[in-house]
Amino acid sequence: MLCSCMNCLQHFGNDSFQLESGGYSMHNDLLPSLGATINHTIKLRKHIVSPYDPRYRLWEKFLIVLVLYSAWICPFEFAFRRYLPSTIFLVDNIINSFFAIDIVLTFFVAFVDHKSYLLVDEPKRIAGHSKSLGFKLLSVLRLWRLHHVNSLFARLEKDIRFNYFWTRCTKLFSVTLFAVHCSGCFNYMIADRYPDPERTWIGAVIPNFMEHNLWVRYVTAIYWSITTLTTTGYGDLHAENTREMVFGICYMLFNLGLTSYLIGNMTNLVVHGTSHTKNFRDTIQAASEFASRNKLPKHMEEQMLSHICLRFKTEGLKQQETLDGLPKAIRSSIAEYLFFPIVQKVYLFQGFSFNLIFQLVTEMQAEYYPPKEDVILQNEAPAYLYIIVSGAVVSNFSLLPNLQVHGRLTAGEIFGEIGVLCNMSQPFTIRTTELTQILRLNRTTLFNIIRQSRQDATIVMSNLFQVFN
Amino acid sequence: MLCSCMNCLQHFGNDSFQLESGGYSMHNDLLPSLGATINHTIKLRKHIVSPYDPRYRLWEKFLIVLVLYSAWICPFEFAFRRYLPSTIFLVDNIINSFFAIDIVLTFFVAFVDHKSYLLVDEPKRIAGHSKSLGFKLLSVLRLWRLHHVNSLFARLEKDIRFNYFWTRCTKLFSVTLFAVHCSGCFNYMIADRYPDPERTWIGAVIPNFMEHNLWVRYVTAIYWSITTLTTTGYGDLHAENTREMVFGICYMLFNLGLTSYLIGNMTNLVVHGTSHTKNFRDTIQAASEFASRNKLPKHMEEQMLSHICLRFKTEGLKQQETLDGLPKAIRSSIAEYLFFPIVQKVYLFQGFSFNLIFQLVTEMQAEYYPPKEDVILQNEAPAYLYIIVSGAVVSNFSLLPNLQVHGRLTAGEIFGEIGVLCNMSQPFTIRTTELTQILRLNRTTLFNIIRQSRQDATIVMSNLFQVFN
Amino acid sequence: MLCSCMNCLQHFGNDSFQLESGGYSMHNDLLPSLGATINHTIKLRKHIVSPYDPRYRLWEKFLIVLVLYSAWICPFEFAFRRYLPSTIFLVDNIINSFFAIDIVLTFFVAFVDHKSYLLVDEPKRIAGHSKSLGFKLLSVLRLWRLHHVNSLFARLEKDIRFNYFWTRCTKLFSVTLFAVHCSGCFNYMIADRYPDPERTWIGAVIPNFMEHNLWVRYVTAIYWSITTLTTTGYGDLHAENTREMVFGICYMLFNLGLTSYLIGNMTNLVVHGTSHTKNFRDTIQAASEFASRNKLPKHMEEQMLSHICLRFKTEGLKQQETLDGLPKAIRSSIAEYLFFPIVQKVYLFQGFSFNLIFQLVTEMQAEYYPPKEDVILQNEAPAYLYIIVSGAVVSNFSLLPNLQVHGRLTAGEIFGEIGVLCNMSQPFTIRTTELTQILRLNRTTLFNIIRQSRQDATIVMSNLFQVFN
Amino acid sequence: MLCSCMNCLQHFGNDSFQLESGGYSMHNDLLPSLGATINHTIKLRKHIVSPYDPRYRLWEKFLIVLVLYSAWICPFEFAFRRYLPSTIFLVDNIINSFFAIDIVLTFFVAFVDHKSYLLVDEPKRIAGHSKSLGFKLLSVLRLWRLHHVNSLFARLEKDIRFNYFWTRCTKLFSVTLFAVHCSGCFNYMIADRYPDPERTWIGAVIPNFMEHNLWVRYVTAIYWSITTLTTTGYGDLHAENTREMVFGICYMLFNLGLTSYLIGNMTNLVVHGTSHTKNFRDTIQAASEFASRNKLPKHMEEQMLSHICLRFKTEGLKQQETLDGLPKAIRSSIAEYLFFPIVQKVYLFQGFSFNLIFQLVTEMQAEYYPPKEDVILQNEAPAYLYIIVSGAVVSNFSLLPNLQVHGRLTAGEIFGEIGVLCNMSQPFTIRTTELTQILRLNRTTLFNIIRQSRQDATIVMSNLFQVFN
Repeated sequence: MLCSCMNCLQHFGNDSFQLESGGYSMHNDLLPSLGATINHTIKLRKHIVSPYDPRYRLWEKFLIVLVLYSAWICPFEFAFRRYLPSTIFLVDNIINSFFAIDIVLTFFVAFVDHKSYLLVDEPKRIAGHSKSLGFKLLSVLRLWRLHHVNSLFARLEKDIRFNYFWTRCTKLFSVTLFAVHCSGCFNYMIADRYPDPERTWIGAVIPNFMEHNLWVRYVTAIYWSITTLTTTGYGDLHAENTREMVFGICYMLFNLGLTSYLIGNMTNLVVHGTSHTKNFRDTIQAASEFASRNKLPKHMEEQMLSHICLRFKTEGLKQQETLDGLPKAIRSSIAEYLFFPIVQKVYLFQGFSFNLIFQLVTEMQAEYYPPKEDVILQNEAPAYLYIIVSGAVVSNFSLLPNLQVHGRLTAGEIFGEIGVLCNMSQPFTIRTTELTQILRLNRTTLFNIIRQSRQDATIVMSNLFQVFN
Repeated sequence: MLCSCMNCLQHFGNDSFQLESGGYSMHNDLLPSLGATINHTIKLRKHIVSPYDPRYRLWEKFLIVLVLYSAWICPFEFAFRRYLPSTIFLVDNIINSFFAIDIVLTFFVAFVDHKSYLLVDEPKRIAGHSKSLGFKLLSVLRLWRLHHVNSLFARLEKDIRFNYFWTRCTKLFSVTLFAVHCSGCFNYMIADRYPDPERTWIGAVIPNFMEHNLWVRYVTAIYWSITTLTTTGYGDLHAENTREMVFGICYMLFNLGLTSYLIGNMTNLVVHGTSHTKNFRDTIQAASEFASRNKLPKHMEEQMLSHICLRFKTEGLKQQETLDGLPKAIRSSIAEYLFFPIVQKVYLFQGFSFNLIFQLVTEMQAEYYPPKEDVILQNEAPAYLYIIVSGAVVSNFSLLPNLQVHGRLTAGEIFGEIGVLCNMSQPFTIRTTELTQILRLNRTTLFNIIRQSRQDATIVMSNLFQVFN
Repeated sequence: MLCSCMNCLQHFGNDSFQLESGGYSMHNDLLPSLGATINHTIKLRKHIVSPYDPRYRLWEKFLIVLVLYSAWICPFEFAFRRYLPSTIFLVDNIINSFFAIDIVLTFFVAFVDHKSYLLVDEPKRIAGHSKSLGFKLLSVLRLWRLHHVNSLFARLEKDIRFNYFWTRCTKLFSVTLFAVHCSGCFNYMIADRYPDPERTWIGAVIPNFMEHNLWVRYVTAIYWSITTLTTTGYGDLHAENTREMVFGICYMLFNLGLTSYLIGNMTNLVVHGTSHTKNFRDTIQAASEFASRNKLPKHMEEQMLSHICLRFKTEGLKQQETLDGLPKAIRSSIAEYLFFPIVQKVYLFQGFSFNLIFQLVTEMQAEYYPPKEDVILQNEAPAYLYIIVSGAVVSNFSLLPNLQVHGRLTAGEIFGEIGVLCNMSQPFTIRTTELTQILRLNRTTLFNIIRQSRQDATIVMSNLFQVFN
Repeated sequence: MLCSCMNCLQHFGNDSFQLESGGYSMHNDLLPSLGATINHTIKLRKHIVSPYDPRYRLWEKFLIVLVLYSAWICPFEFAFRRYLPSTIFLVDNIINSFFAIDIVLTFFVAFVDHKSYLLVDEPKRIAGHSKSLGFKLLSVLRLWRLHHVNSLFARLEKDIRFNYFWTRCTKLFSVTLFAVHCSGCFNYMIADRYPDPERTWIGAVIPNFMEHNLWVRYVTAIYWSITTLTTTGYGDLHAENTREMVFGICYMLFNLGLTSYLIGNMTNLVVHGTSHTKNFRDTIQAASEFASRNKLPKHMEEQMLSHICLRFKTEGLKQQETLDGLPKAIRSSIAEYLFFPIVQKVYLFQGFSFNLIFQLVTEMQAEYYPPKEDVILQNEAPAYLYIIVSGAVVSNFSLLPNLQVHGRLTAGEIFGEIGVLCNMSQPFTIRTTELTQILRLNRTTLFNIIRQSRQDATIVMSNLFQVFN
């Protein structure tokens, strides 16, 4: 796991290089960065290839195709060797030579040091990087080559560009197919080598089976194999002698493990896949039960439900959790990037220093409100200041019983500031008219930041009064 | 997932549209309730139908019935075409014409814009809303129509009016039945087309199978199919030639996936369904172990257990969690709706302004206590003020050792206020006599709210003393 | 679920009654309690029976036995009716009469009102309590009686005296057995009624099956049934005609659901059962990896691991979580019961009023420490005061470099008080010598409580100095 | 579970015993390390053996081998008794004598008292420690000996040196093999004892089966057994008479339970094994969706992703959680051990007392930052002080627009102190250049600790100014 995380780090390190090579001036110059030493534009020594070179990646993919072919042909040759044309062995040798080339290539591919995360291109150290070399030598053994496929799948599972469910299913399907193929071939071989062809699993049904063509025999073998693996066990083909029984015992024991593993994985995927819907149902159900039990008026129930719907919709994006997991500096720079332009233009903060607005921005929290939801209730205690990022709200205030003022606020406007700054209960009800994104700033935080200099407090209050006069 | 959440939002978005188009003026006018305005009232252009029109919904349901029929008849015709009466093809053409009508209808059904959540009824934009149209054209292909059924189930799973367990089971059952039906028909077709009828899976058992009636042949096909799917595999019917073996291999591989998926789903449903009982057991067990290990007196153990029982009973309703997930304004308006009438009548708050009581109400927390549980213990530090919403409590105070005063408090009465306001340890033990709902207000919060004006503090204290004198 | 929680409440309500009838004087008199109206000692009207009467409970258990017999005999009679002796029908009638008695009895059994939790013994209301009556009338139908068994299992699953794993397994096993029995009998009946006995599943193997004795035929039917249910499907017995195929199709579809359900339940039980061990492993592994990665000295690693072991051991008891879930008053009374006697005798609190010690006790937290673990490190900031409940600790202080004083403290003694009261870093290292239970009191909490009266602060300080002089 | 935790505690308790009996005098003397004192050094009474004695452990392992042999031979003898050579019964008697020796040995092995966690070596108390003795006596029964194996697996599952997945799989595999072996032998025995050998499951296929050699018969029996257990059920071997059917029914019912249990366990292991990868995927996906939705610049996305990668990499080590679960004293001593040497050398704290640095160290939190991540942003509010433990950072400050000062800080240096101490927004941006470990100290905590004495505050400020002048 750790190892593949490192892979992932390298991957991003790689991106970072490309960005910097595009060049933004200051920050980067002073940062002799990790990324700067990775990838193809990096000058590696002559004759040394980067493992991130697209041509090398292509070579790796080509090898995987060869591995798949090897994995399929190997048990097949084992069982049907005497019936196969000689061309097939020629192909084998060609493939073997490709793997030999790969072993030689190992001495010319730079590798990433596990401690420093730097590419190493000294031929001596590459040669000494024995682990990778040792593994490759094992590729001389045909089936060992399968570990290439295994590591491919391990990488794909971590890769978010591929759907987890389907990657995992493909892997399990491949493993199953391979098991079926191997055991089918092996079982045929037992029958083929048995002294009395009549007393074999295939000979009992097709007496002269050796005279049939390869396709019929192979399909029959696979049919027996899959019938046993899925525990269907029609019984039309079954062990006839002790050898076949012993093989059958082993295969069935293996199948018990494999099918349990398949079911376990499928359960895992199903549980993972349906958890979102189940949570959604549970929450909606709890809310509507609450509403009906307490006989809440329809408009309140509607506000509750639409808020929950919106929360689940945006929970798929997991905005808040993602941000909370990051260190303060990254959060601040994201907040600055996203919200500084809007907060800067708010009338209340005109005349503030860059520093102060920066600090305000980093403390703000973004929230979505569905249409027609109350953000502030009249007479509420003032706890937050709100700035509209997108969407719109309407306010409705009645300072005097028969004087009604309506207002419509849109992106870039602030509300709730009167209550917060004058420390009085909110004079308006504020309600969204469409899907609205709002920045929320805690009152205490605001005061803590402004309190730092007496001057800023004055600016805020004068801004406030200027608008009202 | 997101997509179906959007669906849900559209539902509410739709309402909001209707409300706004009605134009609003005042707090209450502006909120005609959900039920009253849904669907029929919106004036769409002439000849344009709302997707929420009950007649259109009925049409959709009718189409689903046709889809189910198509799904069943399609593989059946495929296998038994030459034995079927011609009427059945007439029916097919009638059904096809219904789907053609649905495609034409698409140009006259308003749709909900994904960004604004508003119903669009301009013919041009509807015609340009190509995604939905494109999908419908594919309905010309018979099996593609099944996606109607799929989206129906996706909607039902989100709909809390239907039990999740049974919706999910029905879906899985339908998928299984469909797989069984298709493969049965296909396997029959292989036998039917095979040159030597004796060497087929059905011909080996029923030599003159083509002369039997359709019902016998269909049941035999389905019997083979289900025997294979469930991996029972009696073996009375089994593949006799290579074609059938190849089909059998594919079908068994598919079955392996399907049964894993069924088991995975069932496990998921079982885990979800039993989690409540398991939590309940674990908690009760922990509590009674704690009691017996510490040799607590029986009445304490009883209080603990009955409190836990009650908590689990009300946790099904998940009151507190539901409220906590909502934004402050909604919570406040719910609290106001539910508790304002009771808090307003409490003697301690007589003379308070509306504002102040409103703020107190929004800070209160509702809790249930089972019968005979202590709410306050004599000599406890005063932390909360309690108001009874329903049920009753008895108090027992002994200011002097041999002077016992008992009291009974019911809905609308307050207790614990002497300790809180006079800052002394509680002089009473308060115990519930029946299932009691109580509002709890934190002492610090109370003081923070009252402190805002000196006048209110005076009112509270004078209210307090008036009662005691 | 809710309903069974209520059951549980009644159950405890019941206990509480018995305690009170044993009589503790004051508190109880003034509490006309819920419990006081439940159970046999309660005077119900004449001829009205309490549902908690042990004789009625015995009657219910007797009925369950009859239900089990009915469930078994009913499908058996259905299949083998013509071969059974007439005595068996006599037994049936006797059993039916018992259920008739139960229906009559319904009018004389008090029931618990769902709203007030009180036993209702008015004949009119009992007769009107139609739900329970309506259900019982259905018992005339034999198989409906199984719902008695179902509700028995639902109750057992909630009952912590029975192991959840085994209760659940027994239930699933019973359901499986019943399904096997029913389908076996039904399948036999199909063969028995078929016009051509040679062309049935049993007749094909045992040509003259009707002449064999009942036992052979019943075992053969059950054997076929279980072979199909477990999907073993030897194929020695299999459907021979269309009727049997149709029944087989239905049974196999049902089995698919049942086996999925069995596996789902087993998975659920396994996951639940192994979670404790897995957590334990993960935590221990994380701790020892941490220690070895940071090259911590052996004695630190040992302290970490033994603390984690102890925590997991006591987590089984879930002490802290249990307490946290309870309301303040219950927690206070438990704390008073458990710790007041010990805290009262601590020298530091001599001369304190009952009130004050009571408040201190309710704020204390109990913790277990394994042997040889440091509780306080020399020079640490003083954050807590500790009182030993059981076990022993040794202290080691070196006020001057070459003056070493050792001490041993046992149950009832206090430590850490010098640091806390004199606001200096802890002068001792304190280490446990055996498994020790310690009460911990936060410094801030202590000061908040003592600060209430100047007098108490003086007492504490004088107690402290008295010891040191 | 609790019981095995106790085992684990006893392990440590045991150590603690040894330590105390050695008697201790001073801080370091008193803690000879875990490894050095284990087992052999304790002086137990003469003729009494410690249960931790490696020779006794070897004896226990030897017994387990005997148990496994017994478990295999016992059903085998049962079925094939009449065909076995007499030597095998001689071996049985030898093995029985070993178990007899073990029972005698029980009186000479010390045991760990469950309450005091001390080894008890008094012969009287050992003899009275009946539970262990009683269990051992049951070993006279052959199959009872299997509980030795069961307790071995229970211990292995808790032992983190063994992989949980493989331990659990081995256990389940052994149980399965044993079930297959037993039922195979038992089924053979039924056939062997049946009056008419032709009408048995084996006789129907191998008419003269009693004349074949043991191997053929044993393999056939096992083949039938595994065919049934895995529900493959070819049907070539199947029950021929009622006895065999009854046994088959029981075995298949048992298999249903066993396979469910196997699948349940496998699912549990798969879910446990893949949770890390799934969490990683979900988090990375959420972060990159967030970045692309908000169109964050590439370098921000890169910082987010590489931080998350690093967090998951180190989460495998679960550093923070491990520490949080420990009591304060252990955490403090670990912090002191790990960080005191570095904090002591920081220029800012030169002249501080040991006490004060100790308190600072215990409040610090260690964190890892990936390369090229911002730790502090220019103009940020000062919240933390940072000390570099390993790795390096670069700072970039521009007090005047065209004056740029760069600096590089490495292990042991402090940054962020100017902002914190002068209460101004951070004048630098600080960015890591490689994988960096940093100690973080909260500003408020720092001030609380320094505030204790006026002198220390002066030292800090003078240290700060000395550097800048």
